Amino acid sequence: MKIITFSHYKEVTDDVLKDSYAVVIDLLRATSTMIWAISNGAKGIIPVEDISEARLLKRLDESVLLGGERGGLKIEGFDLDNSPLSYKKEAIFGKTVVMTTTNGTRALKKASCAKRIFLGSFINAKKTAEYIMKETLHYNIDTISIVCAGTEEKFTLEDILCAGYFVDLFIENFPDVFLDDLSLASHVLYKKFENDPHEILKYSYHYNHLKKLGFEADLEFCLRKDFVDCVCEFRNLVVEKV
Amino acid sequence: MKIITFSHYKEVTDDVLKDSYAVVIDLLRATSTMIWAISNGAKGIIPVEDISEARLLKRLDESVLLGGERGGLKIEGFDLDNSPLSYKKEAIFGKTVVMTTTNGTRALKKASCAKRIFLGSFINAKKTAEYIMKETLHYNIDTISIVCAGTEEKFTLEDILCAGYFVDLFIENFPDVFLDDLSLASHVLYKKFENDPHEILKYSYHYNHLKKLGFEADLEFCLRKDFVDCVCEFRNLVVEKV
Repeated sequence: MKIITFSHYKEVTDDVLKDSYAVVIDLLRATSTMIWAISNGAKGIIPVEDISEARLLKRLDESVLLGGERGGLKIEGFDLDNSPLSYKKEAIFGKTVVMTTTNGTRALKKASCAKRIFLGSFINAKKTAEYIMKETLHYNIDTISIVCAGTEEKFTLEDILCAGYFVDLFIENFPDVFLDDLSLASHVLYKKFENDPHEILKYSYHYNHLKKLGFEADLEFCLRKDFVDCVCEFRNLVVEKV
Repeated sequence: MKIITFSHYKEVTDDVLKDSYAVVIDLLRATSTMIWAISNGAKGIIPVEDISEARLLKRLDESVLLGGERGGLKIEGFDLDNSPLSYKKEAIFGKTVVMTTTNGTRALKKASCAKRIFLGSFINAKKTAEYIMKETLHYNIDTISIVCAGTEEKFTLEDILCAGYFVDLFIENFPDVFLDDLSLASHVLYKKFENDPHEILKYSYHYNHLKKLGFEADLEFCLRKDFVDCVCEFRNLVVEKV
């Protein structure tokens, strides 16, 4: 078993991905929000790259909700922003949400040549890692790719810490696993800040950007571990519960 | 003052680099070897991308030495490989060396839009950082770019640890410096393995590759800190002593 980590979606190489199961992480906040929405009963999430594409889908099916952000903020005319806290049961139960976010959507699309694509976040990492390990053993898959969305096509610390948590969960079960250098570094970084990721993230770029925009509650939410049980998969262009 | 780190040469963005002073790091082994060669009296190093280009320069000027590697090993017909230990005073004093290496040469070329380009390694980091800090203050430069060469266009742990050492030296003098996420992560990783980088590098890809090829002495050499005083700059396509 090999674990290969990519620091942002533009780094992804199809030759590594194509035989792998991929975990896509946009911790702050796209994948955390999508997972929380599904966990709260949303039927599915359709990630799209452009605002115009989202609006087109709404014209085709009025019942869908539009969600997402640009620059961290809600898009004009959309039903929901990109804060997980907006995706309450009463708002989204039974609904399909069309979402567009800056990095998360692109990372999911970029990962689409993987055999299967899962959404990763601290909020459901344990269940997701357990499911992936079970399935990789069953189907004899020998590579897990961790695709961090990154921010503005750069290495992003919060995604890397979450990648390190996944590495930690995987190596517990696969002690002989091969880790590439970024998986190794992610794991070291995760272990160092395991008990308080805020300690290092308070110096990081995107975390501070969201803090300045007033999303402190989101930061707390997205950094809490394993209070969500559902595993989310991106298949046929839709995110759904496994 | 800002410090921006790139994990490999393909990540480099010209808009960040163009107003910055850059440090290029290919710790194992290109920049370490070039620095050691200059420190041992080589007149200059001309880094070239292709073997054929190196051979052409030798045809034009028979007095140059050819050095470099492919797959870590000496190139057929070349005078020197890429091991710093081959660049002894008696072999290279007063000579110009044309060198081609897989990642280091490309990183130097890729960094060439920076205002000035320095070579970085553990072996001379302190003197190099001191010189860069003095010059950036004098010329009012507000960005230092750290360009890791990486391996096969991927994040490479030994370059990142060395980047973290440079960050450590810079923040000692510029306590209010802005660090991007990768500079921050590099610094954390460096501090954790400051006293024994082998502890983590023994699990890393390129370090192990060189170990298997029998270059253990090179690994020891390149990870020793600050026994070289000279500062090396890449300008007009040649690496020379500042």
